[in-house]
Amino acid sequence: MNAEEHSTRLADAAPAGENVGGNAENVEKADPGTERLVFFSDAVVAIAITLLALDLHVPQGTTGTAFWRDAVDHREDYLAFLISFAVIGSHWLMHHRTFTYLARLGGRLVRWNMLWLLTITLTPFATRVIVGDGAFAARFMLYALVQVLAATFSLLCLLEIQRHRLLRPGADKEALSRGYRRLTVMLVAFVVSIPLAFVTQLAYLCWVAIPFALRAEQLIGPRRPHSPGRR
Amino acid sequence: MNAEEHSTRLADAAPAGENVGGNAENVEKADPGTERLVFFSDAVVAIAITLLALDLHVPQGTTGTAFWRDAVDHREDYLAFLISFAVIGSHWLMHHRTFTYLARLGGRLVRWNMLWLLTITLTPFATRVIVGDGAFAARFMLYALVQVLAATFSLLCLLEIQRHRLLRPGADKEALSRGYRRLTVMLVAFVVSIPLAFVTQLAYLCWVAIPFALRAEQLIGPRRPHSPGRR
Amino acid sequence: MNAEEHSTRLADAAPAGENVGGNAENVEKADPGTERLVFFSDAVVAIAITLLALDLHVPQGTTGTAFWRDAVDHREDYLAFLISFAVIGSHWLMHHRTFTYLARLGGRLVRWNMLWLLTITLTPFATRVIVGDGAFAARFMLYALVQVLAATFSLLCLLEIQRHRLLRPGADKEALSRGYRRLTVMLVAFVVSIPLAFVTQLAYLCWVAIPFALRAEQLIGPRRPHSPGRR
Amino acid sequence: MNAEEHSTRLADAAPAGENVGGNAENVEKADPGTERLVFFSDAVVAIAITLLALDLHVPQGTTGTAFWRDAVDHREDYLAFLISFAVIGSHWLMHHRTFTYLARLGGRLVRWNMLWLLTITLTPFATRVIVGDGAFAARFMLYALVQVLAATFSLLCLLEIQRHRLLRPGADKEALSRGYRRLTVMLVAFVVSIPLAFVTQLAYLCWVAIPFALRAEQLIGPRRPHSPGRR
Repeated sequence: MNAEEHSTRLADAAPAGENVGGNAENVEKADPGTERLVFFSDAVVAIAITLLALDLHVPQGTTGTAFWRDAVDHREDYLAFLISFAVIGSHWLMHHRTFTYLARLGGRLVRWNMLWLLTITLTPFATRVIVGDGAFAARFMLYALVQVLAATFSLLCLLEIQRHRLLRPGADKEALSRGYRRLTVMLVAFVVSIPLAFVTQLAYLCWVAIPFALRAEQLIGPRRPHSPGRR
Repeated sequence: MNAEEHSTRLADAAPAGENVGGNAENVEKADPGTERLVFFSDAVVAIAITLLALDLHVPQGTTGTAFWRDAVDHREDYLAFLISFAVIGSHWLMHHRTFTYLARLGGRLVRWNMLWLLTITLTPFATRVIVGDGAFAARFMLYALVQVLAATFSLLCLLEIQRHRLLRPGADKEALSRGYRRLTVMLVAFVVSIPLAFVTQLAYLCWVAIPFALRAEQLIGPRRPHSPGRR
Repeated sequence: MNAEEHSTRLADAAPAGENVGGNAENVEKADPGTERLVFFSDAVVAIAITLLALDLHVPQGTTGTAFWRDAVDHREDYLAFLISFAVIGSHWLMHHRTFTYLARLGGRLVRWNMLWLLTITLTPFATRVIVGDGAFAARFMLYALVQVLAATFSLLCLLEIQRHRLLRPGADKEALSRGYRRLTVMLVAFVVSIPLAFVTQLAYLCWVAIPFALRAEQLIGPRRPHSPGRR
Repeated sequence: MNAEEHSTRLADAAPAGENVGGNAENVEKADPGTERLVFFSDAVVAIAITLLALDLHVPQGTTGTAFWRDAVDHREDYLAFLISFAVIGSHWLMHHRTFTYLARLGGRLVRWNMLWLLTITLTPFATRVIVGDGAFAARFMLYALVQVLAATFSLLCLLEIQRHRLLRPGADKEALSRGYRRLTVMLVAFVVSIPLAFVTQLAYLCWVAIPFALRAEQLIGPRRPHSPGRR
């Protein structure tokens, strides 16, 4: 992979300090290379989230009763689809809140973003794995590991954005700290769920708890004041 | 899902009133976050509509007669493909008429749009379900339910756009009321078709009637005057 | 389908005459709704062209000889893939030459474009059909019919663009007439190949001849002068 | 294929010399046709890279031990997936560094880009081939051939960009020479690996060595000075 040196050199070319002055053009538009990275990421995420439904079990049965019974028998497949849709959707929303306001690329951002995309493309595969028969703990662990990696690479993206001050001057800085808090919640939930899966299939509840934990975080977390500079 | 609080805060940041003044920039360009949401939605819809054809039955047969007979035997598969293509295409056209002229995100718009995308990604799956053998009413109901949800989430998007005044000042307001009327027609047709499916397979005709109903609605519905402000 | 009335009304709103004056903004940028239609079309075409390779036969065989023999046995699959790639690629290039310079939507352009996209999404399916065993003429005819429809809807798009003068003032008008000539060549080749297929499998040669016919058309066709107004 | 004459004529319309003067508009924005080609290429690459994971083997097994043993048995499938992801990702990064700063199309650029896209869409297929059972050298050769073609068409793109001076005036010229060096490294590694594959399965190591060779090239290669003109 050769993302790193590329982005490092770009960072050299546009040193972190120069953006702080905040010329009007940077507020309006990102570097075309930045826009294209965002576009490419969106396309990969859109494909991955749509492919999830490709693997859904089509209920069999020649009578209504048999059809619905077969559908209920595969309820965990449908639950796994919904969880994966929510996970990829949440990742896209977090990407949307930060990358949309990038001024330029820099540091190892391109590398971490590529590795994050790798975990996103693996999520439909991990979903197929988890709905397989038997070996619950192993399948559960593989799925959780992919999500742990996704959250980690996403956190590394945020770190690079912060360290190299890649956001546009007028961008909402609070989005970064909220991203950290949310990704940390996801990371912890998926890590904790792995040992639990060897004890009980209810380890699933760790994942279902994520939206509630995020909501609680939002209520008790530090509130940002309404500053005029953000969009 | 964490779309709601995000969009709510964005709505706070850009209060509904400020757009009414209509500064020139808002007429010209949307917020970059809005453009990206529209782009992401387009990509998901494009993938879903293209995947429909992935599931089409390839006619079998080593002679021309056998080939065409097998094709005719699967005529309902091809009809279901065409209906799904028309349904997703119509949804995209309605999205095109309203979201293209969004000035910004706000309220629960991102959440309802994500749930609408969920129903769009489920449409190829619902198409696979409906062409299965036996249990006609159950399969028909599942397909119609997905479409009822799609129309509902799409209506909720329009409601948020109207309530939070998210359109650009110069945008065509009539597009919203036409969207309401069209989505209501779709919603009613799919809801009504469900009980009919338990009586007759001709319940399909409710769906086929949608374009005719929309045409009739257009002819008798309120006409907007040719105002100079719209695009 | 409700594309028609929508685009008609848009055409009303921006009457064909107003563009001829050629204000600078129209030269620079298209209506956002136009850009989005082009984007959506590109996404559908990109997915269809990539899905073609999804159906390619993976050669079997545990020895090198068996592997290559199996690959050669399926040479018609690979030829069909290349033809379909060339067909979709050519369609995209023609779309690129005209739609890129659209100023706005109008007439029935959105409807014909949607139907053209339908034929593009059907092309991977038609490719799977044509590589099936037996019933050569029937399979060949189905593939050719999809391409006849694709060329027809594409021609109808060009007609609408011309009739409603939808191109930007500075756009290359010659692109339209070249599009007509090229699509006519494709249309004729696919139409003529259908009866031939009932006589000989060499009907394929009609399709292979298309690029040569296009080249000849270019050499003997009317040359446009180098005018300063085109891009 | 009719890409060539199209792009040649575009090149005529905007002769290579005119860009050197460097008017401000060209620095800011590309021709809309150029943007659309880049967009279309990104979409195709995004789909191909996401489809790679569609073919991943889902480990079977009703106990944890059986599950992991089956996963380990298919370790070469997962390695092939990662290699293909890295190969397509690297190609995209190289495309990103040059095409993002294109001012316009010209020469045979569109043709070579289309053929490069053909090799990208073939990469998921080549990945399915290489993970098949038996006939190692033959499968390996087919995969390497696709990559040799991909690097060749990408090099031809760079040649056209250089010959017809298609980059924007302010664009980073060094990106071109780095692209040449990197693509040459990839080309040589894939060419050399083919005869090796007939001797040993360790021919894989040629591919694994590519990132290291690229890193070494970067360290010992000619360094460009920090010129103010690049972005």
